[in-house]
Amino acid sequence: MHQVVVAGVGMHKCGRYPDKTYSDLAEVAALNALEDANVPWEDVEVAYASRVRAGSTIGQSICRRLGLTGIPIINIENACASGSTAIREAFFAIGHGLYDIAIVIGVEKMDRGVIGGVGEEGSLDRDLGMNLMPALYAMKANAHMYKYGTTKEQLAKVSVKNHKNGCFNPYSHYAKVFTVEEVLTSKMICDPITLLQCCPTSDGAAAVVLCAENVIGKYNSKTKVFVAGSGLVTEKYNSELDITTRASQAAYEMAGLGPKDIGLAEVHDAFTIGEIIHYECLGFCAPGEGGRLIDEGRTEINGDIPVSPSGGLLSRGHPLGMTGVAQVCEVVWQLRNEAGDRQVRDPKTGLTHTQGAGGVCSVHIFTK
Amino acid sequence: MHQVVVAGVGMHKCGRYPDKTYSDLAEVAALNALEDANVPWEDVEVAYASRVRAGSTIGQSICRRLGLTGIPIINIENACASGSTAIREAFFAIGHGLYDIAIVIGVEKMDRGVIGGVGEEGSLDRDLGMNLMPALYAMKANAHMYKYGTTKEQLAKVSVKNHKNGCFNPYSHYAKVFTVEEVLTSKMICDPITLLQCCPTSDGAAAVVLCAENVIGKYNSKTKVFVAGSGLVTEKYNSELDITTRASQAAYEMAGLGPKDIGLAEVHDAFTIGEIIHYECLGFCAPGEGGRLIDEGRTEINGDIPVSPSGGLLSRGHPLGMTGVAQVCEVVWQLRNEAGDRQVRDPKTGLTHTQGAGGVCSVHIFTK
Repeated sequence: MHQVVVAGVGMHKCGRYPDKTYSDLAEVAALNALEDANVPWEDVEVAYASRVRAGSTIGQSICRRLGLTGIPIINIENACASGSTAIREAFFAIGHGLYDIAIVIGVEKMDRGVIGGVGEEGSLDRDLGMNLMPALYAMKANAHMYKYGTTKEQLAKVSVKNHKNGCFNPYSHYAKVFTVEEVLTSKMICDPITLLQCCPTSDGAAAVVLCAENVIGKYNSKTKVFVAGSGLVTEKYNSELDITTRASQAAYEMAGLGPKDIGLAEVHDAFTIGEIIHYECLGFCAPGEGGRLIDEGRTEINGDIPVSPSGGLLSRGHPLGMTGVAQVCEVVWQLRNEAGDRQVRDPKTGLTHTQGAGGVCSVHIFTK
Repeated sequence: MHQVVVAGVGMHKCGRYPDKTYSDLAEVAALNALEDANVPWEDVEVAYASRVRAGSTIGQSICRRLGLTGIPIINIENACASGSTAIREAFFAIGHGLYDIAIVIGVEKMDRGVIGGVGEEGSLDRDLGMNLMPALYAMKANAHMYKYGTTKEQLAKVSVKNHKNGCFNPYSHYAKVFTVEEVLTSKMICDPITLLQCCPTSDGAAAVVLCAENVIGKYNSKTKVFVAGSGLVTEKYNSELDITTRASQAAYEMAGLGPKDIGLAEVHDAFTIGEIIHYECLGFCAPGEGGRLIDEGRTEINGDIPVSPSGGLLSRGHPLGMTGVAQVCEVVWQLRNEAGDRQVRDPKTGLTHTQGAGGVCSVHIFTK
């Protein structure tokens, strides 16, 4: 396999843009990524577009804005892991020599309120409403609290940390500090998950330019960020632990790295309990010790394993098709030491993690 | 690149199945393909699902029926070229050594009536209704008739041929013979396109198992069918001629073959004029001579360049996400001499062609 480099990244700020189309949002992100990469659009050889809710061939609509050059354009969907799945397809296509330069564009415009109707078609889970995400995560939270003694305060601290981090991210939908008390007393959505423990429904877009290492020299002289590992798995045993564990193991193995080597991680904190469980599945602590990890401040920006310095889904927002791509943007900015007031101290490696309906989980590892 | 073999193919008959889900249809096709390949589901290493209208993570819902084994599952959308785009992704993933065995599953359930609302988001074309497919093809037909003297009877003969072929295909939605007169006097949809010149709105599914050549020996001893070439392009100059020409040139070049080497072709005959234009763009005749090609019977099953012996989209049906995969099924059956009463005489090569909204076009070439 050829070495694959993230040549450039770009985003459109998350928020609510009723007057903007998918293409309006995505065009901004794509142009930012191309500018960051110093790669002219005409040199891009393939485009992957990631989205869940857009109509047919949205990638073509976006690329038309940039000036159609005739390249293959492929639209990818994998629920909340759509963006990271698109990154994986582009990574492999370049790594195996199909193309030298790819752009991955993730975009979404979200409805307001609780997301439902996802998950397995015609399934009992779906008929029972277990595909409503806050309900599903509330059950996970209750199970974790029962099994390990995890507390509501520990859950709330994830929200406090990520909202604080998000204040330093210019792309955040919400840049506001909250206290544990405010998080716990915000509107109850599904016990024990309160409103401030749920990611907002946001619109936004992110883009990443990937290059074969042997061509990057032509374009820019930024710190090289390599895609070092990728894992994508689908739920086997109806166990969330299983999919994050297995996806991360696949990525660690490909990268030749382990959890202790990770300098920062952007994880799927759609709900606070998610981040705590993912600490454990990603190997940042032993099973059941996720609550302690947040208590000890180890996942803060200045901790030994900073998690979601961007503010995560909780603060930046979670436009479904964008998220996996936005995580890569953050990791790249961090590895280049360009993250301003939310900069982790000189990280050498970063990890991204998304998971979603249908039991999909994807993990990527980046190095410099 | 490793050589990639189509190890098995399978379909669910096209029709209208209001009581069946996407997964119901796709499961049948997938099981048929796995049985045909003699490959146990547990040995499949990646799944690509192709659909336009299904909800999120339909591939995961389908694979759950087969017994989730934890593999990566990727949902692909590219309008009418979704199925062939998924074939291309799987072809490259195996060809470049990522996996040894992949399944591609294409499925769709269609609304009744004219398909609208596709095409570029927020575009003038869309606002003007030019994204209504019969209208778009009617304009192409009028232009072709004006420029080259193509006749309404020649258009109708495409429908007559493909409906006749479809009578011998057990998977056809419509198996009924029509005369030129019946085609021309059927309900006018958009002048000169009459009802029997439009593909029906059908539900259906198709699946293909792709293997690296070096593992196929373990599984079956059928005639080996190789994927020899692939082209995928996106409209550059708002010219349909351009995309089919360029996609086929890319596929011909990869395969080291030309139009004269093709033993049969399954082309995108969503509307009769489409097939005539595609004859020309695929290089089966010179520009403007498509009408003559159908007049001379050269694209009949017993002609020198049989086109859509399956009955094509006009007779089999056009469940969007299924079509590109269904075309591969037909080509494989033909190359194995298993096509019964619609068998082309001992073809050595086959070509598939899909194109759709967003200006997407994909061409694949298969050899034995």
